[in-house]
Amino acid sequence: MSELTPELLNTTTWKIPNGLAIVGSHHEQEFNGMTASWISQFNMDPVTIGVGIDNTSLTHSLISRNGFFSLNFFSSDNTKVFVKFSKPAKYTDGYLNEEPITLTTNNVPIFNNSVLWFELKVINSQNLGTHTLYLGKVLDCYLKDGDFKVAEMSDTRMKYGGVPRGGHNKN
Amino acid sequence: MSELTPELLNTTTWKIPNGLAIVGSHHEQEFNGMTASWISQFNMDPVTIGVGIDNTSLTHSLISRNGFFSLNFFSSDNTKVFVKFSKPAKYTDGYLNEEPITLTTNNVPIFNNSVLWFELKVINSQNLGTHTLYLGKVLDCYLKDGDFKVAEMSDTRMKYGGVPRGGHNKN
Repeated sequence: MSELTPELLNTTTWKIPNGLAIVGSHHEQEFNGMTASWISQFNMDPVTIGVGIDNTSLTHSLISRNGFFSLNFFSSDNTKVFVKFSKPAKYTDGYLNEEPITLTTNNVPIFNNSVLWFELKVINSQNLGTHTLYLGKVLDCYLKDGDFKVAEMSDTRMKYGGVPRGGHNKN
Repeated sequence: MSELTPELLNTTTWKIPNGLAIVGSHHEQEFNGMTASWISQFNMDPVTIGVGIDNTSLTHSLISRNGFFSLNFFSSDNTKVFVKFSKPAKYTDGYLNEEPITLTTNNVPIFNNSVLWFELKVINSQNLGTHTLYLGKVLDCYLKDGDFKVAEMSDTRMKYGGVPRGGHNKN
């Protein structure tokens, strides 16, 4: 039995391999994108993907009200995009923080420069304390042709996980 | 809107970056280890990690009855270990499939050759159809000293995800 300190919890959870994605969300005419890393598929029929979202974030507020979101993955040679989405995003016609987006028929923003994306409908949400786990059924998805490596947390200097501390993305 | 075929769902979900871990489980004197990849942290307080487990697996049966499990991650230069745990494991005193294990005070098997592990207590489980999502509160964890890359799905020729099909791990 180790001494389960916050430091040990941080350094150990930071080592769990995770992808990075921009979560697209909207409600009425408000749109947002937020970098997130707590993402995994969890069911095959229906194909269901979970994402963990900070309860204090704008994205949490938008998904909770609207029930739809997107997960947009990028190539590992384009990780600068994630830095752009560490605070609430600015929408101007067809763009979020100058990244071109397309709206689905459900009005969910999809990032045009992503290499794969999923559009999802929330089928379950669970407030776990600091974060809410949204489970989404895949409505649509896209995979770019060609060879690329999908960007992961470990391709960047970002760390996310462990115990609560200052400086988290709150957008 | 794409045509959401099983092939598109498979190839796209397979690209989601995921780690690989051996899930340790037990009930009474039955012990098991199973390779799994649907893993992510989802909450900071308490530190909570989710794993998706096939409903037809022995691991599902053991965790459901016992309420504890471990997640054991290995170095990317030791991915052969995952191949050993694609069917129900054979336990002989102190070993699962010849991999040395230690039992925690809750009797959960921990793999001695892992580079990081978590011991978890199930705080919520949700049957999503083909798989159950177990959310576990971290009771204990370990991180090996030194430099290593934690093994991910993409370090192997394994693929897991997408829609139901034959040939899945059922252990």
